[in-house]
Amino acid sequence: MKTPICEQYGIDFPLFAFSHCRDVVAAVTNAGGFGVLGGAAYTPEQLDQELTWIDEQVKGKPYGIDIIVPAKFEGKGENLSGRQLSDRIPDEYKAFIADLLAQHDIEPDEKPRLGSAMLAGSNGEQLLEVAVAHPIRMMANALGVPPDYMIKSGKDHDIPVAALVGAKEHALKQVAQGVDLIVAQGTEAGGHCGEVSTLVVVPEVIEAIDNAVPVLAAGGIVTGRQMAACVALGAAGAWTGSVWLTTEEAETAPHTVQKMLAATSRDTIRSTGRTGKPARQLISDWTDAWRPNDTGHPTLPLPLQSMIAEPTLRRIDKLAATGHAGAQALSTYFVGQGVGLMNKVKPARDVVFEFVEDYIAAAERLGGSVSD
Amino acid sequence: MKTPICEQYGIDFPLFAFSHCRDVVAAVTNAGGFGVLGGAAYTPEQLDQELTWIDEQVKGKPYGIDIIVPAKFEGKGENLSGRQLSDRIPDEYKAFIADLLAQHDIEPDEKPRLGSAMLAGSNGEQLLEVAVAHPIRMMANALGVPPDYMIKSGKDHDIPVAALVGAKEHALKQVAQGVDLIVAQGTEAGGHCGEVSTLVVVPEVIEAIDNAVPVLAAGGIVTGRQMAACVALGAAGAWTGSVWLTTEEAETAPHTVQKMLAATSRDTIRSTGRTGKPARQLISDWTDAWRPNDTGHPTLPLPLQSMIAEPTLRRIDKLAATGHAGAQALSTYFVGQGVGLMNKVKPARDVVFEFVEDYIAAAERLGGSVSD
Repeated sequence: MKTPICEQYGIDFPLFAFSHCRDVVAAVTNAGGFGVLGGAAYTPEQLDQELTWIDEQVKGKPYGIDIIVPAKFEGKGENLSGRQLSDRIPDEYKAFIADLLAQHDIEPDEKPRLGSAMLAGSNGEQLLEVAVAHPIRMMANALGVPPDYMIKSGKDHDIPVAALVGAKEHALKQVAQGVDLIVAQGTEAGGHCGEVSTLVVVPEVIEAIDNAVPVLAAGGIVTGRQMAACVALGAAGAWTGSVWLTTEEAETAPHTVQKMLAATSRDTIRSTGRTGKPARQLISDWTDAWRPNDTGHPTLPLPLQSMIAEPTLRRIDKLAATGHAGAQALSTYFVGQGVGLMNKVKPARDVVFEFVEDYIAAAERLGGSVSD
Repeated sequence: MKTPICEQYGIDFPLFAFSHCRDVVAAVTNAGGFGVLGGAAYTPEQLDQELTWIDEQVKGKPYGIDIIVPAKFEGKGENLSGRQLSDRIPDEYKAFIADLLAQHDIEPDEKPRLGSAMLAGSNGEQLLEVAVAHPIRMMANALGVPPDYMIKSGKDHDIPVAALVGAKEHALKQVAQGVDLIVAQGTEAGGHCGEVSTLVVVPEVIEAIDNAVPVLAAGGIVTGRQMAACVALGAAGAWTGSVWLTTEEAETAPHTVQKMLAATSRDTIRSTGRTGKPARQLISDWTDAWRPNDTGHPTLPLPLQSMIAEPTLRRIDKLAATGHAGAQALSTYFVGQGVGLMNKVKPARDVVFEFVEDYIAAAERLGGSVSD
């Protein structure tokens, strides 16, 4: 394929693959797509190691990084320590979690501590400094408007800045802010997501920003035919995440992989139970315990909810890996509704090639409907 | 276009248009699509009149009807009168509505009565008898598995039976039941809908039923590019509803049309506040007053909720039409997320032609991405 975005990013196929796993990033890039490393959870030193490894694997082929710097969060601008933030978590929440764990034969949790995934709010700038010393070809912010230092760094180093949006109003704001690539993400996406579906938000965003920058489609895309559908809508390509979780390279825990392979598209929920912001994930006793379902407990704002949720969920995952039934019932993972179409573990390279084949078949199907 | 479904249904373009308005049905059919009259709210005599009028307009061109016979509802099998059903509505609900109305400067409602939209549960068979005396080319049930008498009537009269589904499990059940056409409907659809998005549920359903019957895509589709996207996914065509509500022919109240033109895709909600089953509609003070939002009042099961809601909402709509501010704040209407892309009142015929043009452009866009 030789579309403008392929030329601009130096790729064969406009399939962007977000993953926390460097092996997936390198495999996708080497197969002709564009790997994007989710770098938010690393220390600057760790990120440097990961990117060095990727550089060795991809030998100059293009890849990018994604950090998560929330535009708004509890305590923002107040310069609070983790200690001060944790004082804002009512004791009643700790008791509720201890209860929930006890109901699942798990000892009460230790003292709540800050979930590392949210640390990028404070060390995002350092991560970015590390990243631009590597030959990255894109930097993305997955949660709201990119911070000023990212926009500036992108301009200084001539690296496109991408941002995820779930509504046209956000896309307009991002373009005004100087973003070079919009990822319009539907409600079916794994992780933080809005309420509007991919089929609606993609054309709505494209129309709103009037070709100011290219738009990638995201949300629920785990096959080439869905990617083709989005290109028919006007998208320049697809941004994917969930589909890489069940690849051979991914570091997804085996019990989570099994849950995903067995899941239908109705086994996910957009829940605030993990981070305090609505994020799609596997339905579990954990997501059942928190709103929005009628009987659930209210949640705290970002990052307080992840401060109490993440350390506990990590303990739960460790226990679940040992076969603990209660922990397996509680364990959840960010994944989109496309999980219903993810039914086999495959190498990431094969996923890319199947995307290409399926994309071409879909283009022929649509073309055939008008030419006959 | 000459796809198998066009041949089978005798149409030029596989765009199926559900509407309560006979003018829309006739206009779409006459423009080369397939109009489907929503017949559930009529008496048998009224339906006969409507279909006679359509017959005169379309002169043998194909159209269909849709009735709503819920597979499950409160009191089903108990053979209850409206009076007995209404005894199951707690007084507290009547008080809650009276309060809500008072807050909006509206006098308390009269005694609750059965919402006519749900009457098809009891008179669906009569409606169908009337319909098959007309040259209908499809009969659909919009809510769950079609009743046995519909399947039988379809076979007896050689008329395809269609059913709407929001999940692959339901599609499998429908096909086993003998349905001839599946409408796979995403969560972005107006009215009763499931939780899975169109982009995911369409390929999931197609894969699950393994080409046993054709699948139309529904949910959020208000443009030709979205229809093309669904054909790229493997759908045989599109089933639409919302887009006809802002056509010149539609009987939508002017204040509702104005709300729809102004709405973005985020101005709808999947609420149980109208019928007791989740149904997507415009966000209003009415939908705010009921769950699933955190502060809302719990709702009753189908049809009890519509028994209390429909007569009140009809009063509200009448008041809203006079410019009553409180009534306008409460007034809502079933519509999908595609409302964000509905920005102009047009003749239904023009909508069909714009769909065709936009569809062809989308096919060229996708084709161009692989041929260059």
